[in-house]
Amino acid sequence: MCGIIGVANHEDAAKIAFLGLYALQHRGEEAAGIASYDGNIHIVKNPGLVADALDEKSMEGLKGKVAIGHCRYSTTGSSNYKNIQPFLVTHKNRPIAVAHNGNLTNTETLYAKLEEEGSIFQTSMDTEVIVHLLVKTKNGDMQAWFRNVLSQLQGAYSLIFLVGDTLVGARDPNGFRPLCLGKLDGTYVLASESCALDLIKAKFVREIEPGEIIIIRGNNMESCYLPRKAKGNCSHCIFENVYFARPDSNIFGDNVYEVRKRLGRQLAKEHPFRDADLVMAIPDSGNYAAIGYAQELNLPLEIGMIRNHYIGRTFIQPSQFMRDFRVRVKLNPIRDVIKGKKIVVVEDSIVRGTTSRNRIEALREVGPKEIHMRISCPPIKSPCFYGIDFPSKGELIASNKSIKEISKFINVDSLEYLSLEGMLSVMKDSKDFCHACFTGKYPVEIPKNTSKYLLEGKIVKK
Amino acid sequence: MCGIIGVANHEDAAKIAFLGLYALQHRGEEAAGIASYDGNIHIVKNPGLVADALDEKSMEGLKGKVAIGHCRYSTTGSSNYKNIQPFLVTHKNRPIAVAHNGNLTNTETLYAKLEEEGSIFQTSMDTEVIVHLLVKTKNGDMQAWFRNVLSQLQGAYSLIFLVGDTLVGARDPNGFRPLCLGKLDGTYVLASESCALDLIKAKFVREIEPGEIIIIRGNNMESCYLPRKAKGNCSHCIFENVYFARPDSNIFGDNVYEVRKRLGRQLAKEHPFRDADLVMAIPDSGNYAAIGYAQELNLPLEIGMIRNHYIGRTFIQPSQFMRDFRVRVKLNPIRDVIKGKKIVVVEDSIVRGTTSRNRIEALREVGPKEIHMRISCPPIKSPCFYGIDFPSKGELIASNKSIKEISKFINVDSLEYLSLEGMLSVMKDSKDFCHACFTGKYPVEIPKNTSKYLLEGKIVKK
Amino acid sequence: MCGIIGVANHEDAAKIAFLGLYALQHRGEEAAGIASYDGNIHIVKNPGLVADALDEKSMEGLKGKVAIGHCRYSTTGSSNYKNIQPFLVTHKNRPIAVAHNGNLTNTETLYAKLEEEGSIFQTSMDTEVIVHLLVKTKNGDMQAWFRNVLSQLQGAYSLIFLVGDTLVGARDPNGFRPLCLGKLDGTYVLASESCALDLIKAKFVREIEPGEIIIIRGNNMESCYLPRKAKGNCSHCIFENVYFARPDSNIFGDNVYEVRKRLGRQLAKEHPFRDADLVMAIPDSGNYAAIGYAQELNLPLEIGMIRNHYIGRTFIQPSQFMRDFRVRVKLNPIRDVIKGKKIVVVEDSIVRGTTSRNRIEALREVGPKEIHMRISCPPIKSPCFYGIDFPSKGELIASNKSIKEISKFINVDSLEYLSLEGMLSVMKDSKDFCHACFTGKYPVEIPKNTSKYLLEGKIVKK
Amino acid sequence: MCGIIGVANHEDAAKIAFLGLYALQHRGEEAAGIASYDGNIHIVKNPGLVADALDEKSMEGLKGKVAIGHCRYSTTGSSNYKNIQPFLVTHKNRPIAVAHNGNLTNTETLYAKLEEEGSIFQTSMDTEVIVHLLVKTKNGDMQAWFRNVLSQLQGAYSLIFLVGDTLVGARDPNGFRPLCLGKLDGTYVLASESCALDLIKAKFVREIEPGEIIIIRGNNMESCYLPRKAKGNCSHCIFENVYFARPDSNIFGDNVYEVRKRLGRQLAKEHPFRDADLVMAIPDSGNYAAIGYAQELNLPLEIGMIRNHYIGRTFIQPSQFMRDFRVRVKLNPIRDVIKGKKIVVVEDSIVRGTTSRNRIEALREVGPKEIHMRISCPPIKSPCFYGIDFPSKGELIASNKSIKEISKFINVDSLEYLSLEGMLSVMKDSKDFCHACFTGKYPVEIPKNTSKYLLEGKIVKK
Repeated sequence: MCGIIGVANHEDAAKIAFLGLYALQHRGEEAAGIASYDGNIHIVKNPGLVADALDEKSMEGLKGKVAIGHCRYSTTGSSNYKNIQPFLVTHKNRPIAVAHNGNLTNTETLYAKLEEEGSIFQTSMDTEVIVHLLVKTKNGDMQAWFRNVLSQLQGAYSLIFLVGDTLVGARDPNGFRPLCLGKLDGTYVLASESCALDLIKAKFVREIEPGEIIIIRGNNMESCYLPRKAKGNCSHCIFENVYFARPDSNIFGDNVYEVRKRLGRQLAKEHPFRDADLVMAIPDSGNYAAIGYAQELNLPLEIGMIRNHYIGRTFIQPSQFMRDFRVRVKLNPIRDVIKGKKIVVVEDSIVRGTTSRNRIEALREVGPKEIHMRISCPPIKSPCFYGIDFPSKGELIASNKSIKEISKFINVDSLEYLSLEGMLSVMKDSKDFCHACFTGKYPVEIPKNTSKYLLEGKIVKK
Repeated sequence: MCGIIGVANHEDAAKIAFLGLYALQHRGEEAAGIASYDGNIHIVKNPGLVADALDEKSMEGLKGKVAIGHCRYSTTGSSNYKNIQPFLVTHKNRPIAVAHNGNLTNTETLYAKLEEEGSIFQTSMDTEVIVHLLVKTKNGDMQAWFRNVLSQLQGAYSLIFLVGDTLVGARDPNGFRPLCLGKLDGTYVLASESCALDLIKAKFVREIEPGEIIIIRGNNMESCYLPRKAKGNCSHCIFENVYFARPDSNIFGDNVYEVRKRLGRQLAKEHPFRDADLVMAIPDSGNYAAIGYAQELNLPLEIGMIRNHYIGRTFIQPSQFMRDFRVRVKLNPIRDVIKGKKIVVVEDSIVRGTTSRNRIEALREVGPKEIHMRISCPPIKSPCFYGIDFPSKGELIASNKSIKEISKFINVDSLEYLSLEGMLSVMKDSKDFCHACFTGKYPVEIPKNTSKYLLEGKIVKK
Repeated sequence: MCGIIGVANHEDAAKIAFLGLYALQHRGEEAAGIASYDGNIHIVKNPGLVADALDEKSMEGLKGKVAIGHCRYSTTGSSNYKNIQPFLVTHKNRPIAVAHNGNLTNTETLYAKLEEEGSIFQTSMDTEVIVHLLVKTKNGDMQAWFRNVLSQLQGAYSLIFLVGDTLVGARDPNGFRPLCLGKLDGTYVLASESCALDLIKAKFVREIEPGEIIIIRGNNMESCYLPRKAKGNCSHCIFENVYFARPDSNIFGDNVYEVRKRLGRQLAKEHPFRDADLVMAIPDSGNYAAIGYAQELNLPLEIGMIRNHYIGRTFIQPSQFMRDFRVRVKLNPIRDVIKGKKIVVVEDSIVRGTTSRNRIEALREVGPKEIHMRISCPPIKSPCFYGIDFPSKGELIASNKSIKEISKFINVDSLEYLSLEGMLSVMKDSKDFCHACFTGKYPVEIPKNTSKYLLEGKIVKK
Repeated sequence: MCGIIGVANHEDAAKIAFLGLYALQHRGEEAAGIASYDGNIHIVKNPGLVADALDEKSMEGLKGKVAIGHCRYSTTGSSNYKNIQPFLVTHKNRPIAVAHNGNLTNTETLYAKLEEEGSIFQTSMDTEVIVHLLVKTKNGDMQAWFRNVLSQLQGAYSLIFLVGDTLVGARDPNGFRPLCLGKLDGTYVLASESCALDLIKAKFVREIEPGEIIIIRGNNMESCYLPRKAKGNCSHCIFENVYFARPDSNIFGDNVYEVRKRLGRQLAKEHPFRDADLVMAIPDSGNYAAIGYAQELNLPLEIGMIRNHYIGRTFIQPSQFMRDFRVRVKLNPIRDVIKGKKIVVVEDSIVRGTTSRNRIEALREVGPKEIHMRISCPPIKSPCFYGIDFPSKGELIASNKSIKEISKFINVDSLEYLSLEGMLSVMKDSKDFCHACFTGKYPVEIPKNTSKYLLEGKIVKK
């Protein structure tokens, strides 16, 4: 998954992009980059969190009034430096940079055709394909140029381009990933989520529509469209609402915090456990549904586990000795709160099941009487090919075990999931969502043998 | 403030010390170090968070079954390398390392005497004075040796020494700072707070008593005492309960989470605002009192601000442009939750007042109807000379403004503090606490002109 | 200028390439890189001297039995990372890496044509043009493929390619830059100079001929040719003999040390100063001609200046204060040797004249009676477009001043240069040399407005 | 071995010290440091060559008009950071820094006494003992203070102290190590060798006398003496002349270059090989004696091996593969010069013999007819306890083998050393030299079991 930002015409374009990425950090913690333009093109990109990847010293070089930024959690391509975005080339003296959130589904076909014609690829990202298509295509008129190129793409994409002094934003016809438009004084800003606009104090204008292409030069904006889906046929990613987006964002026409509380209330209606002494969340992702659940049933909400805010990258690949302590290091149960109690534990979702099992084990050690787990979405059974980095089907626990088996695996006294209908019932426009991860119904065709490392074998590793 | 840990006799002594420091990270984020002994002495110490200061590679060198560790937030001494603890010397082939939490009050007198006798100081820490006294004092019998030296000290100290293969723990007679004893299989462990014992799965045995000296060699422990205060005359730091300690720790005979909830309930009794639409905390320090406050008045508790978990050191000294965005970067209000509502905001304490003002300003921008602030301790009016790094009197807002003036300064519709009596009423043994920061009544005499940089002028800066 | 190396089929291919580059370090001190192939392609390249750019840890990754290496002193392209060679791409799963010594003269034309066809350039190096031509050209038969591509190039090039498991070496028809073939046990090795073969204990087989293309796979070698110049019409760079190559190398059919001694003897014949008390060299470049000069006239040879071997990169851009001491820091005159003496100072060449002036000034300060300078080549009057990094015409002192004026500028009692005829007379095949830097007669046409930063404006700077 | 420098009163004191250390780099390549004083004390010290250890950025902090510097090749103490000099303490607000060249012989006795009295040592350097003695001693009158302390020391020492704003220089009564006084405008400068004065353009005033203590404050200098040896009883280190000092220095009243040429001439007289085709040196240490040898016999002097100037630290601990190539990497024989010739190879000295053997082996591979080795000093048979880092007796080849055996070991056709009498005959004041390394006659008593790592066990390793 990734976060993207674009600033059209502001003295502090790169700094605003930096702040925007900061707000979008949850969308990608692996690497970050910003490109800016002031007649010359400037770029800084590095592995790490936004604040590490873009240190103040290197930020100084990012001059110019136009800037785009990207933070990344690897979806296609491995984690080497070249695969960090924005991806930038210069062709006939004109720089073209691009930041991409989503995942194309026809990459392989396009790639093979371009190589046959003598194109040399620098990276293993589907994003690079788009740039080669741009360079190969007649490019007099901006609208025609981008319509021509983007109509060759299939899959999920929210894109922000910097083409010389011009900013271009686009969203695939299905509208898989969010992308919104804001205004800061007179300056247009594009961002994955509205929380980025909040942080930089920009006004939320509207979401970019599915299939829309927006071209911004200075303070002027024009818009055109690819052939679009009719309302009721879009495919917004429902998992953005369940887990991925920030609770203070508004996406797909709704507030994420409110959606999650409604999911929690609906969960309480479907699977109440009224005999509980307290309701607690797995922090922080379960917090919002837990509030809804507790309020619906008028049960006391407590903080049953303390999250350690100092967890850094260091602990991601520790030695075996350290790994044994990993769960506790991250989340420590409070004995005096939990001991001897019947508790409801609310979590947003279960993917592999191992994390949940470890956390329940840590809770068990401080002696609760009963643990009843409630999940604010249906069982996840199928991988995502549109940009979310779920593991393969074999690793998704709900793809292989019944709810009863999962309950036993993670060792809880009861386990209940929200129903698909219940989940969709609290959404606005419930027909406009992709729920393939729960149902396996993919709204855009998936090529056989698709892997996120599709292009790896073909590409130089440095 | 600092966190300290000691492991007496375990194959993985340094790793356990590392985990303990991880759990104690909140007590000191500036630097960390561990010393271990296996016949030879080993030490690693560096600036930064525990996981950065003690990377896996350097940890490999920390061999031996005895180890002590320290994490530090500067109280005396500036932030240079030498001032990072454990402080270690070797004298007559015997290594002596020490980790110190607290602040001596007679450092200057001791320092001058030692220099006159030809001692050369390496650091500007009060801790080094203790080591010079040890080296100058007859040291045949361990109990006599430490009683002799520690009885010359005044002020606040919880100490853990490594003397060759022996671990020594000690706590000043007033018992200002916490220090507890645990057992992991047969191994004794000393730690500032019980949350460190939880993490390493050690059993909590008891707290070290005020004035107690504990000497541990292998799995044998002996104990002796300095002249102690009678019960009812101790001076536990009440601010550990209000803010500093971790909510999942048990210190001074009580659970911190429970104490804070009781503070919140008492605050609700003293200053209820029953007309509120919701209660919210300033996360995370206000979370626990907010739960108590909301439960006492049966008001809905909501998450009104999202804390950004990605805030790193990078943002500590940003450029002016970035500083303007600092509050929002850290805590973003959720408009849909707050807009048009009458809200109660619960915070644990107010020090300078500027942070609260900034946060309230951020809340105001999303349009609440009214903001009523409630503080779960009395106004802080006096600095601490026993180890907490409050600013000088001039910077403590409650030392210079009335509650009404503070209310105006931070721009809330109402502001109320918990009373001193109310605060003490929810403590066990309310006579055993130091509340000098609220009342100015210092239980151990303070020398005139005391400054935490007392020794700086005298000491080599690298 | 650059040094290149290739190893065809050896268990330690990358290590041998490393050693070869070490021996070729004098040909390029700015950056170094090695690519190797074992089914996968591996590459390490960094700024700095060979031993810094290719540290032991990164060398471990350079697996495989085929390797090529490059060390570089910028001729075309600025000094950024991407411009460090080998230049590597992967096309249709086949890696193509190249190391280039020399300078193309028709880069601009080729570049424009390729961009028009949709090629995206990654660097500002003329070398990249060659790779795009390779990828665009039908490539079934190796000999035909390379003949087709290389025949489109003009200018100076000694090239080593790694194409999958195959090594390809080539030299332009004029034979500007050296390239030789060696054998280490059964393994073929290609290297700029024979000193690289000496170091790795490889046997010198022969020089690659001008216009020759050599294709090596495993231990099999085949050879083919571009249309070549007739003997007597080659254009070996004579400055390689005068200054650039290592004295222990054999290039262009001759030993460099012996050539330089002959230049010194010839210089003594043309411009003897028999009244000298001693002959000294400007170390180390003047050492060999000085020996010839002293032997021819039977004058005592002394070491008049001590070269400081500790001069590192650090001193290259010092503060003004340090700059004043720069000459002395590098070369310190020995007062007791020089004071009161009539001395002959032998230097290989004068470029800008400022270095010579500074050195003579340092010598003057220790009180010689007379200083007579002798230069073992003619005055340098024209820039080089075939790979040597001379400054522009305006900065070449001999392009703007008479010998008499230069003598005055550097403040010597007499100054004499070797004649063109004298220089050529001591070469084997005197018709086979390029002496454009002395005469301005360029054997391959130079495009107008050529600059070594030709492509910079077009290329992304990172 | 070490180099030391002091600058008494100059605006650019630290920069001048830096340049001085640059000139003294050959005396210690392991680490370097500078301390300066401007009311506050400043210090920078790091491992590495002078230019790496003291980078320009850190140099900026070295303010003040008084500075001392040190570069070090470990003699006592291991190579950790604390052992890098200057060694600095602050006592009663007065900084005391010291730079030491030489080696005390009564360290152990002094150390034990000081520890017994409660002193805590920070390092394993004999130098620290001196500072503890200073701090323990009444210090009203500078001359009396230093006379009192230095008279307790035994062994070899040239010392420069910075005591607040005062510079103190001292040399042991035997005068083992050089130390000279210069003047730069009005400013006094102290340095190990005169080449440092040359570089900074200071005038050579005189050498500090054996047993002399010089105290400089501002531009005023005073001098006093410890009880001194009579002329003819000093013990200047003759190996400084043979190998260690720079050829452009004047030490012990003589020019090093001239001394070495005289050694070479004397060697030619004692062991002529008139039938040689050429004389060559092992560069660079053998260069000067080789000139003398060749001139005495009127034989042609050639450069038979090229020294690779790019050898850096990287090659000091290479893998086995690289080690095999080490000799050649450093020194490459020139085949065309040597092949088929009878050559005389002049070297300054042989220590372990392995280096010589490797070099001769490299020479053999290019096919000389005969190799005759000549050494410009007698066989080294005993270790040095006065500051030169010879290996133990067991590793000194001449301590265990006859000249004939050595000749066989290094595989030369003949091997001859200069005689002790011959060596002394070309010195001024031949009675004033220590030649213990050749004769085993130690002018100052050596304690039994002395090792250069004497103190290591007692001292904290970081």
